[in-house]
Amino acid sequence: MRLGIDIGGTKTAAVAIGADGELSDLVRLPTGFGGPAVLSTARQVVRRMSELAGVEASAFDSIGIGIPGAVDTATGRVEHAVNLGLEGLDLGPKLSDELGVEVRVENDVKAAALGAHHLLGVADGVTAHSMAYLNLGTGLAAGIVLDGELLRGGHGVAGEIGHIPVDPAGVRCTCGQRGCLETVASGSAIARMWPTEHPLPARELFDLAEAGEAHAVDVREQFLRGAASAVRLLALTTDVDDIVIGGGLAALGEPLLLGVRRILNEWAKDSAFLASTDLAQRVQVIPLGFPAAAVGAALVGEPSWQNS
Amino acid sequence: MRLGIDIGGTKTAAVAIGADGELSDLVRLPTGFGGPAVLSTARQVVRRMSELAGVEASAFDSIGIGIPGAVDTATGRVEHAVNLGLEGLDLGPKLSDELGVEVRVENDVKAAALGAHHLLGVADGVTAHSMAYLNLGTGLAAGIVLDGELLRGGHGVAGEIGHIPVDPAGVRCTCGQRGCLETVASGSAIARMWPTEHPLPARELFDLAEAGEAHAVDVREQFLRGAASAVRLLALTTDVDDIVIGGGLAALGEPLLLGVRRILNEWAKDSAFLASTDLAQRVQVIPLGFPAAAVGAALVGEPSWQNS
Repeated sequence: MRLGIDIGGTKTAAVAIGADGELSDLVRLPTGFGGPAVLSTARQVVRRMSELAGVEASAFDSIGIGIPGAVDTATGRVEHAVNLGLEGLDLGPKLSDELGVEVRVENDVKAAALGAHHLLGVADGVTAHSMAYLNLGTGLAAGIVLDGELLRGGHGVAGEIGHIPVDPAGVRCTCGQRGCLETVASGSAIARMWPTEHPLPARELFDLAEAGEAHAVDVREQFLRGAASAVRLLALTTDVDDIVIGGGLAALGEPLLLGVRRILNEWAKDSAFLASTDLAQRVQVIPLGFPAAAVGAALVGEPSWQNS
Repeated sequence: MRLGIDIGGTKTAAVAIGADGELSDLVRLPTGFGGPAVLSTARQVVRRMSELAGVEASAFDSIGIGIPGAVDTATGRVEHAVNLGLEGLDLGPKLSDELGVEVRVENDVKAAALGAHHLLGVADGVTAHSMAYLNLGTGLAAGIVLDGELLRGGHGVAGEIGHIPVDPAGVRCTCGQRGCLETVASGSAIARMWPTEHPLPARELFDLAEAGEAHAVDVREQFLRGAASAVRLLALTTDVDDIVIGGGLAALGEPLLLGVRRILNEWAKDSAFLASTDLAQRVQVIPLGFPAAAVGAALVGEPSWQNS
């Protein structure tokens, strides 16, 4: 059994995958803040999972962790995980020494890409295909899986498409550039464009737009055009088979998917070239509640899972 | 000995690569127009190469052909090679049947990417690294090589970044979209922005800009920003180690390289994130006269060449 853990800004989720590919129940805990608290959260969730499975922690074949920030997959060290109050932590080696199990650490979006790839593979019966996972969370980033293998890149920026500018007249991005994809198609973009006290700003935005409120329609369309631009960019660069939208905003579900598809179809009307790429049919939204990052974390560095 | 042929819009170039990786002299012929004439050009160039090598054509281990248009690498068929007056041609099978040698066919930009990758590998002594070849010709497209393998994609648009829009206020592209990279950083873009009778419009543009002519400076900067945008986009999506600029406009040489680097460095001043990617150091221009597409064509489908 392989254990996968997704350490997020507010909660940590874990799931176990059996040799048959079957998923265990999901366990969720609040994430601690700061290096020692994050490590303690990881320990706690491993303990819970081993209790549930009725085995010692050392009985897991491997433990994989998805975590935001800059991850050195070779050493298991995490840096710059700002949301977790974590400047630097040797997460992999520390946990591995304590538990006597191999611990692999991966960036959370890349882990989620593997999880989404696994989900598509289970659905299609094909596991070596190529896909991109477009994470629309607070920020915007992608994880790219080519022929079943995660594209890691050599300089830590594979899939960092959120910081590709697509509008010279756009607003200044936190990265210092102007008009980045992240400034229109992310949670932070919605927070800026649609200030509200509502606990779910994107949901409120989409609901009011659906009801015909003019400003909401404007903002929603800007957001959807940004998301569709990200889909188009991923397809015209890597030519992956599928683009799966995940991240917090994927909870919008069908209105998000139909909106992005509508924009892509509108663009295709003006461009025979774009129409030939059939993008609207290649984009999906990840099913609500599927723990992509935890599932993917369990699969990190396990090319053999493709054959399981 | 493997033979590589680059069938271009006006001329066809060929080169042979020995088992030791050494390149033969380059042969060039004018390219015929239309399917039968293109096939005849290919035959002619094979004959010339076998005469030069003093062997029968059937003695070549393989023949690879790079050609513009939509290529089905599995069948060796070429379609929509508009510049060659070629609607559809079973180039691979026809030549292979006639010559009794395996013939592989690849899109010319993808072949050139393999050729540029080979050149970098010879220079660095590392052949499995990742790079993107940014072709600035009449149009703009890229070929991406990841860990020594060409990224082909499943839908014929891998590397078609020329049709990614980066300016909603940009001009209409031939593809029907607006503000595509190709509308600012390509030969056709220069023809539109800098109408002239000069036989080398890009050279004239750069010379006058260098001399301080205000309009030429404006147009050159637009072009360079487009080229630098393409470099940034490739890096932030695929995170390749190097981006090598090739294609007809690469003949601009140092002024092109220094211009693109200057723009990237200017952008990096405003963005610590971009500065961290060290893009200016990762971009290169292919040496003048290096027959990237012919060399790459010889290597198409030969992963074993990496070890030669």
